[in-house]
Amino acid sequence: MTTPAPNIYNEKCPTRIVLDRIADKWTVLIIGQLAEKTFRFNELKRCIGGITQKVLTQALKNLERDGMIHRTIYPTSPPKVEYSLTTLGESLTVIVHQVKEWSEQNVGQILAAQRVYREDNAN
Amino acid sequence: MTTPAPNIYNEKCPTRIVLDRIADKWTVLIIGQLAEKTFRFNELKRCIGGITQKVLTQALKNLERDGMIHRTIYPTSPPKVEYSLTTLGESLTVIVHQVKEWSEQNVGQILAAQRVYREDNAN
Repeated sequence: MTTPAPNIYNEKCPTRIVLDRIADKWTVLIIGQLAEKTFRFNELKRCIGGITQKVLTQALKNLERDGMIHRTIYPTSPPKVEYSLTTLGESLTVIVHQVKEWSEQNVGQILAAQRVYREDNAN
Repeated sequence: MTTPAPNIYNEKCPTRIVLDRIADKWTVLIIGQLAEKTFRFNELKRCIGGITQKVLTQALKNLERDGMIHRTIYPTSPPKVEYSLTTLGESLTVIVHQVKEWSEQNVGQILAAQRVYREDNAN
Protein backbone atom coordinates (compact mmCIF):
# COMPACT_ATOMS: atom_id res chain seq x y z
CA MET A 1 0.00 0.00 0.00
CA THR A 2 1.38 3.38 -0.95
CA THR A 3 0.65 6.58 0.91
CA PRO A 4 -1.09 9.11 -1.36
CA ALA A 5 0.95 12.20 -2.23
CA PRO A 6 0.21 15.14 0.08
CA ASN A 7 -2.58 17.27 -1.35
CA ILE A 8 -3.63 20.35 0.52
CA TYR A 9 -6.93 20.55 -1.40
CA ASN A 10 -8.06 17.24 0.07
CA GLU A 11 -9.75 17.91 3.40
CA LYS A 12 -8.64 14.52 4.76
CA CYS A 13 -4.95 15.14 3.98
CA PRO A 14 -2.82 15.86 7.09
CA THR A 15 -1.31 18.85 5.25
CA ARG A 16 -4.57 20.60 6.17
CA ILE A 17 -3.55 20.45 9.85
CA VAL A 18 -0.21 22.02 8.90
CA LEU A 19 -1.92 24.70 6.84
CA ASP A 20 -4.25 25.51 9.71
CA ARG A 21 -1.28 25.99 12.00
CA ILE A 22 0.93 28.07 9.73
CA ALA A 23 -1.85 30.09 8.07
CA ASP A 24 -2.50 31.73 11.41
CA LYS A 25 -1.88 35.32 12.43
CA TRP A 26 -0.26 34.46 15.76
CA THR A 27 2.00 31.80 14.26
CA VAL A 28 3.30 34.35 11.75
CA LEU A 29 3.95 36.93 14.48
CA ILE A 30 5.58 34.48 16.93
CA ILE A 31 7.84 32.83 14.34
CA GLY A 32 8.72 36.30 13.05
CA GLN A 33 9.96 37.35 16.49
CA LEU A 34 11.76 34.09 17.27
CA ALA A 35 13.54 34.43 13.92
CA GLU A 36 15.45 37.33 15.51
CA LYS A 37 16.49 35.74 18.81
CA THR A 38 15.55 33.54 21.77
CA PHE A 39 12.72 34.96 23.88
CA ARG A 40 11.29 34.56 27.34
CA PHE A 41 7.50 34.38 27.62
CA ASN A 42 6.81 37.87 28.96
CA GLU A 43 9.26 39.49 26.59
CA LEU A 44 7.56 37.77 23.65
CA LYS A 45 4.14 38.83 24.93
CA ARG A 46 5.28 42.49 25.10
CA CYS A 47 6.56 42.38 21.51
CA ILE A 48 3.33 41.06 20.00
CA GLY A 49 0.68 43.75 20.42
CA GLY A 50 -2.75 42.45 21.37
CA ILE A 51 -1.85 38.85 22.19
CA THR A 52 -3.28 37.55 25.47
CA GLN A 53 -1.44 35.32 27.93
CA LYS A 54 -3.87 32.48 27.16
CA VAL A 55 -3.52 32.73 23.38
CA LEU A 56 0.28 32.98 23.54
CA THR A 57 0.50 29.99 25.91
CA GLN A 58 -1.64 27.85 23.61
CA ALA A 59 0.16 28.98 20.44
CA LEU A 60 3.58 28.20 21.94
CA LYS A 61 2.36 24.79 23.10
CA ASN A 62 1.04 23.99 19.60
CA LEU A 63 4.28 25.13 17.96
CA GLU A 64 6.33 23.07 20.42
CA ARG A 65 4.17 19.99 19.77
CA ASP A 66 4.59 20.47 16.03
CA GLY A 67 8.37 20.55 16.41
CA MET A 68 8.72 24.19 15.34
CA ILE A 69 10.00 25.65 18.61
CA HIS A 70 12.19 24.51 21.51
CA ARG A 71 11.19 25.23 25.08
CA THR A 72 14.24 25.28 27.32
CA ILE A 73 13.90 25.33 31.09
CA TYR A 74 16.89 26.49 33.16
CA PRO A 75 16.96 25.16 36.76
CA THR A 76 17.23 28.57 38.35
CA SER A 77 14.94 29.87 41.05
CA PRO A 78 12.46 30.85 39.74
CA PRO A 79 13.01 28.62 36.68
CA LYS A 80 13.91 30.53 33.54
CA VAL A 81 12.06 29.37 30.40
CA GLU A 82 13.24 30.31 26.95
CA TYR A 83 11.71 29.78 23.50
CA SER A 84 13.69 29.40 20.29
CA LEU A 85 13.16 28.06 16.78
CA THR A 86 14.04 24.50 15.78
CA THR A 87 15.51 23.83 12.32
CA LEU A 88 11.96 23.13 11.11
CA GLY A 89 10.74 26.44 12.58
CA GLU A 90 13.65 28.25 10.96
CA SER A 91 12.66 26.83 7.58
CA LEU A 92 9.39 28.73 7.90
CA THR A 93 10.99 32.12 8.55
CA VAL A 94 11.48 32.94 4.85
CA ILE A 95 7.73 32.62 4.23
CA VAL A 96 6.87 34.47 7.45
CA HIS A 97 9.03 37.43 6.42
CA GLN A 98 7.38 37.50 3.01
CA VAL A 99 3.90 37.51 4.59
CA LYS A 100 4.95 40.38 6.87
CA GLU A 101 6.45 42.36 3.98
CA TRP A 102 3.50 41.73 1.67
CA SER A 103 1.11 42.96 4.39
CA GLU A 104 3.17 46.08 5.06
CA GLN A 105 3.67 46.87 1.36
CA ASN A 106 0.07 46.32 0.26
CA VAL A 107 -1.93 47.63 3.20
CA GLY A 108 -2.48 51.00 1.44
CA GLN A 109 -3.83 49.34 -1.69
CA ILE A 110 -6.15 47.08 0.33
CA LEU A 111 -7.55 49.95 2.40
CA ALA A 112 -8.15 51.90 -0.84
CA ALA A 113 -9.94 48.89 -2.39
CA GLN A 114 -12.12 48.61 0.72
CA ARG A 115 -13.12 52.29 0.43
CA VAL A 116 -14.09 51.87 -3.25
CA TYR A 117 -16.06 48.71 -2.42
CA ARG A 118 -17.95 50.48 0.36
CA GLU A 119 -18.82 53.41 -1.93
CA ASP A 120 -19.92 51.11 -4.77
CA ASN A 121 -22.11 49.10 -2.43
CA ALA A 122 -23.60 52.07 -0.58
CA ASN A 123 -25.64 53.15 -3.62
CA MET B 1 1.59 64.95 10.52
CA THR B 2 3.30 61.87 9.14
CA THR B 3 1.72 58.44 9.02
CA PRO B 4 3.71 55.94 11.09
CA ALA B 5 5.46 53.21 9.11
CA PRO B 6 3.42 50.00 8.88
CA ASN B 7 4.26 47.67 11.76
CA ILE B 8 2.58 44.34 11.96
CA TYR B 9 3.54 43.92 15.61
CA ASN B 10 1.41 46.92 16.57
CA GLU B 11 -2.14 45.74 17.16
CA LYS B 12 -3.54 49.11 16.03
CA CYS B 13 -1.72 49.02 12.68
CA PRO B 14 -4.01 48.27 9.71
CA THR B 15 -1.48 45.68 8.52
CA ARG B 16 -3.05 43.44 11.16
CA ILE B 17 -6.28 43.38 9.17
CA VAL B 18 -4.27 42.35 6.12
CA LEU B 19 -2.44 39.67 8.09
CA ASP B 20 -5.73 38.31 9.40
CA ARG B 21 -7.03 38.00 5.86
CA ILE B 22 -3.98 36.42 4.23
CA ALA B 23 -2.91 34.25 7.17
CA ASP B 24 -6.08 32.22 6.69
CA LYS B 25 -6.44 28.65 5.46
CA TRP B 26 -9.28 29.40 3.04
CA THR B 27 -7.55 32.44 1.56
CA VAL B 28 -4.49 30.33 0.82
CA LEU B 29 -6.60 27.60 -0.82
CA ILE B 30 -8.78 29.99 -2.84
CA ILE B 31 -5.90 32.13 -4.13
CA GLY B 32 -3.99 28.93 -4.90
CA GLN B 33 -6.79 27.73 -7.17
CA LEU B 34 -7.47 31.10 -8.82
CA ALA B 35 -3.74 31.30 -9.59
CA GLU B 36 -4.36 28.53 -12.13
CA LYS B 37 -7.42 29.91 -13.90
CA THR B 38 -10.78 31.69 -13.67
CA PHE B 39 -13.40 29.74 -11.69
CA ARG B 40 -17.14 29.65 -11.29
CA PHE B 41 -18.47 29.32 -7.76
CA ASN B 42 -19.51 25.66 -7.79
CA GLU B 43 -16.37 24.57 -9.59
CA LEU B 44 -14.23 26.34 -6.98
CA LYS B 45 -16.28 24.76 -4.18
CA ARG B 46 -15.68 21.28 -5.63
CA CYS B 47 -11.91 21.87 -5.84
CA ILE B 48 -11.51 22.93 -2.20
CA GLY B 49 -12.30 19.93 -0.03
CA GLY B 50 -14.30 20.70 3.09
CA ILE B 51 -15.30 24.28 2.33
CA THR B 52 -18.98 25.07 2.85
CA GLN B 53 -21.09 27.28 0.63
CA LYS B 54 -21.37 29.85 3.41
CA VAL B 55 -17.64 30.00 4.14
CA LEU B 56 -16.71 30.21 0.44
CA THR B 57 -19.29 32.97 -0.17
CA GLN B 58 -17.94 35.03 2.73
CA ALA B 59 -14.29 34.44 1.82
CA LEU B 60 -14.88 35.48 -1.81
CA LYS B 61 -16.74 38.59 -0.66
CA ASN B 62 -13.86 39.54 1.66
CA LEU B 63 -11.27 38.97 -1.05
CA GLU B 64 -13.31 41.03 -3.52
CA ARG B 65 -13.68 43.87 -1.00
CA ASP B 66 -9.92 43.79 -0.38
CA GLY B 67 -9.23 44.14 -4.09
CA MET B 68 -7.67 40.69 -4.47
CA ILE B 69 -10.26 39.11 -6.75
CA HIS B 70 -12.58 40.23 -9.56
CA ARG B 71 -16.17 39.04 -9.70
CA THR B 72 -17.44 39.16 -13.27
CA ILE B 73 -21.14 38.72 -14.01
CA TYR B 74 -22.15 37.76 -17.56
CA PRO B 75 -25.70 38.73 -18.54
CA THR B 76 -26.72 35.23 -19.55
CA SER B 77 -29.78 33.41 -18.27
CA PRO B 78 -29.09 32.27 -15.63
CA PRO B 79 -26.30 34.85 -15.07
CA LYS B 80 -22.81 33.37 -15.19
CA VAL B 81 -20.48 34.58 -12.42
CA GLU B 82 -16.74 34.11 -12.63
CA TYR B 83 -13.95 34.79 -10.16
CA SER B 84 -10.39 35.69 -11.09
CA LEU B 85 -7.35 37.28 -9.44
CA THR B 86 -6.60 40.99 -9.68
CA THR B 87 -2.99 42.16 -10.02
CA LEU B 88 -2.91 42.51 -6.23
CA GLY B 89 -4.22 38.97 -5.79
CA GLU B 90 -1.65 37.68 -8.27
CA SER B 91 1.13 39.27 -6.25
CA LEU B 92 0.16 36.97 -3.37
CA THR B 93 0.41 33.76 -5.39
CA VAL B 94 4.16 33.36 -4.88
CA ILE B 95 3.68 33.26 -1.09
CA VAL B 96 0.60 31.03 -1.37
CA HIS B 97 2.55 28.47 -3.40
CA GLN B 98 5.34 28.52 -0.85
CA VAL B 99 2.89 27.94 2.01
CA LYS B 100 1.36 25.01 0.09
CA GLU B 101 4.76 23.51 -0.70
CA TRP B 102 6.08 23.98 2.82
CA SER B 103 2.99 22.22 4.21
CA GLU B 104 3.29 19.32 1.78
CA GLN B 105 7.04 18.96 2.28
CA ASN B 106 7.03 19.16 6.07
CA VAL B 107 3.85 17.34 7.04
CA GLY B 108 5.79 14.12 7.76
CA GLN B 109 8.21 15.87 10.09
CA ILE B 110 5.37 17.62 11.93
CA LEU B 111 3.35 14.43 12.39
CA ALA B 112 6.52 12.72 13.72
CA ALA B 113 7.14 15.61 16.14
CA GLN B 114 3.54 15.32 17.37
CA ARG B 115 4.01 11.59 18.06
CA VAL B 116 7.19 12.23 20.07
CA TYR B 117 5.47 15.03 22.00
CA ARG B 118 2.51 12.79 22.86
CA GLU B 119 4.83 10.01 24.06
CA ASP B 120 6.95 12.42 26.12
CA ASN B 121 3.88 13.92 27.73
CA ALA B 122 2.09 10.62 28.35
CA ASN B 123 4.58 9.60 31.09
